[in-house]
Amino acid sequence: MPQPRIEFWFDFASTYSYLSAMRLGPLARAAGVEVSWRPFLLGPIFAAQGWTTSPFRIYPAKGRYMWRDMARRTQALGLPLKELDNMPQNSVLAARVAQLALGTTQGVAFCRSVFAAQFGQGRDIAEAAVIRDCLESTGLPCDLIDRAGQDDNRLILRRSTEEAMARGLFGAPSFTVGDELFWGDDRLEEALAWTTRHA
Amino acid sequence: MPQPRIEFWFDFASTYSYLSAMRLGPLARAAGVEVSWRPFLLGPIFAAQGWTTSPFRIYPAKGRYMWRDMARRTQALGLPLKELDNMPQNSVLAARVAQLALGTTQGVAFCRSVFAAQFGQGRDIAEAAVIRDCLESTGLPCDLIDRAGQDDNRLILRRSTEEAMARGLFGAPSFTVGDELFWGDDRLEEALAWTTRHA
Repeated sequence: MPQPRIEFWFDFASTYSYLSAMRLGPLARAAGVEVSWRPFLLGPIFAAQGWTTSPFRIYPAKGRYMWRDMARRTQALGLPLKELDNMPQNSVLAARVAQLALGTTQGVAFCRSVFAAQFGQGRDIAEAAVIRDCLESTGLPCDLIDRAGQDDNRLILRRSTEEAMARGLFGAPSFTVGDELFWGDDRLEEALAWTTRHA
Repeated sequence: MPQPRIEFWFDFASTYSYLSAMRLGPLARAAGVEVSWRPFLLGPIFAAQGWTTSPFRIYPAKGRYMWRDMARRTQALGLPLKELDNMPQNSVLAARVAQLALGTTQGVAFCRSVFAAQFGQGRDIAEAAVIRDCLESTGLPCDLIDRAGQDDNRLILRRSTEEAMARGLFGAPSFTVGDELFWGDDRLEEALAWTTRHA
């Protein structure tokens, strides 16, 4: 019997994706579930529903609450958190590099290091220097940055984002198990339980 | 020492408020926390951020997901659920009557019966006949419906909604403990734990 599998859809600019990226490893292992990391871009999905930036900027009360909520959650999880004033960061480069990195055994570590650099240290992941540090710290070659911008790799990210929209995703993180969709870090446990129950 | 107290802010038209209304009683008792039920209206708060109806209508992908998510959650909780096609229902009458009902020992039972009539049976809580049934089934007098429309009682609901907005609420259910705000049924357990820790 193949191992049950879940898809973890994330945008590097998404605060709550940071929480899931940091905590899903041990939970998935304990549940015996294999995780496919699926970077995608929220920007085009938000644009399609008329938003030109993060909902946390469009709705200030929601934005203020999000940072307070994140502070409580990261404290409970023992994770560092820097409140960003340049939210949302441009996550295109990080996502394109992640697609290549995830073809290696260090891919997940790279993704985590990007989230940590941004939300733990407050660095701007739109800067190639930051992505280079993340590649180096996880033992990956820096030429992934150049390869990331090639047409075939750009197309993969566009296709992933189109697939996300076609599958009904409207936010991040999301989890899919076949046609079943779960939205939000709060649903991680439920999504894993669903995956094992319907394997 | 006074008993720790939490405020439960809800709009009768809110699906996720239904979940909290149905499950918070035993959880709060177990935590030794007293609950103040605070009906308010999301409409004016949504209007202030440019929404003229429920976000679940404005963003169809989110609306489709919400009903699927509600189906999973209510099944896990053993609660009935009817998918509504007249969402959001007008909850003004229910909220005004609830304010009066909550001054009696049957107030919480009345609120639960309104949620159950709407989301469990698919009835329209804008109809006085439905509210009358809820009052009768919880042993409250039907003249609360007439008293609900009086100026002083209308003003109380307006003030509650203004207070909610001033305290940073942007959705329902929400929970407040002093200045601390928690949004969403998913945060109920965390809000109760916070309440006991900071009593």
